[in-house]
Amino acid sequence: MNKTAAQIRQKIREGIIDAPTAGLAPGHVQANLAIVTKDLAYDFLLFAQRNPKPCPILDVTDAGSPTPRLMAPGADIRYDVPRYFVYKNGVKTDEFKNLESVWQDDFVAFLIGCSFSFETAMLNAGLPVRHIEEKRNVPMYITNIPCVPAGTFHGNMVCSMRPLSPADAIRAVKVTARFPSVHGSPVYLGDPAAIGVKDINKPDFGDPPVIRGGEIPVFWACGVTPQAVAMASKPPIMITHAPGYMFICDKFDEDLSVF
Amino acid sequence: MNKTAAQIRQKIREGIIDAPTAGLAPGHVQANLAIVTKDLAYDFLLFAQRNPKPCPILDVTDAGSPTPRLMAPGADIRYDVPRYFVYKNGVKTDEFKNLESVWQDDFVAFLIGCSFSFETAMLNAGLPVRHIEEKRNVPMYITNIPCVPAGTFHGNMVCSMRPLSPADAIRAVKVTARFPSVHGSPVYLGDPAAIGVKDINKPDFGDPPVIRGGEIPVFWACGVTPQAVAMASKPPIMITHAPGYMFICDKFDEDLSVF
Repeated sequence: MNKTAAQIRQKIREGIIDAPTAGLAPGHVQANLAIVTKDLAYDFLLFAQRNPKPCPILDVTDAGSPTPRLMAPGADIRYDVPRYFVYKNGVKTDEFKNLESVWQDDFVAFLIGCSFSFETAMLNAGLPVRHIEEKRNVPMYITNIPCVPAGTFHGNMVCSMRPLSPADAIRAVKVTARFPSVHGSPVYLGDPAAIGVKDINKPDFGDPPVIRGGEIPVFWACGVTPQAVAMASKPPIMITHAPGYMFICDKFDEDLSVF
Repeated sequence: MNKTAAQIRQKIREGIIDAPTAGLAPGHVQANLAIVTKDLAYDFLLFAQRNPKPCPILDVTDAGSPTPRLMAPGADIRYDVPRYFVYKNGVKTDEFKNLESVWQDDFVAFLIGCSFSFETAMLNAGLPVRHIEEKRNVPMYITNIPCVPAGTFHGNMVCSMRPLSPADAIRAVKVTARFPSVHGSPVYLGDPAAIGVKDINKPDFGDPPVIRGGEIPVFWACGVTPQAVAMASKPPIMITHAPGYMFICDKFDEDLSVF
């Protein structure tokens, strides 16, 4: 696959691609999407600023504008994600292939960093990413680590987990630390009970993990956090991507590296 | 000096310390302060999010609250800076030792990363910081590098400059990259004309540089940018610290390192 990000987005826009985006436009940043109305945008942005590990903001559109100017100036947020979820008062009410019928002039779209970027860095460094090896979804857990609240937004951090040998865990800390805007280094490793995870084999989202002998669970702050927290706060309307159906950016993962 | 940050802030609050804060509470983060009214806070936060190199936000208070909960939960932003500047419609109208007489219930205070933190890292790494050696203020220049606008806020980036040998410049890139929330790695090095600096010996702020043979100018995004940009947009009221009279945080510089 050597299509550019713009070419992939065009196929998504035309409905030719209607599938999870993992593996498309390799090397390009893929992002979580969250759309709220302008009156809630400050609280949402402030929540993200106070919780940069789970909620690293990559771009914020101007109210009513569908253009993410920093990450993909030629894109249209209303058409360029394969599938959207609409939530009303915290409850999912609809799925759409584009936002033509629901777009509002007071919508503000947030693009939020996604673990795809640091997993690419891990794979490039020769580190195993188990759920990719096993063709499963990453396991995610609602922890007891509180986020710092902001306005109406509050809740606990969701973490994704990747099992690693202690030596690989140490290397993964270094490799992922280069990318603070896509969750960066892990937030915890070791005994799951200490962060409120009762049964590592029963994740709250995604598929159960495959943990091999001698491996420890390593937890990263997860981009599901802002959606979960926003859902808990029950805004009148909020729109997100469907999990796995991400927004593909012009920027490259390596553009986000701080060193 | 082995006072804690809280002890230093207490002396500032009581008026016992009324001087530039460089060198106080070594190892603790010192921060730029910018206070705007709630109606402008979203645009200001968005401007910062879009321009994280010059405007790295460390903390944002809730509207009307004087408590920076993340960086110094016991502090009071109204009393704990030695000297404040008040700007009205972009013009400086007053200096105060505390904000008792001017505090408003709709004020939102932003703490913004300061180069003191990465200069400490440079000194710890054995790198020369010329303006400190020479007991001068760092030279700062208004460049032709445009910031990404947000709402009413727009303008060019202000950069601080430190002259270094090429070998030291390379090392300084690595040392300061560890601290993206206090401006991080440089934004430019070499010919000043390429970023719109006509005369390196005539900075727009601070003192003229001392550049030795074989040294090149190395430019970092500067925390004066958000103030300069905010001033250009002429908000009805805005309050800042007096340059050099910074807010001292409980957190340590090393708390901000990403690796």
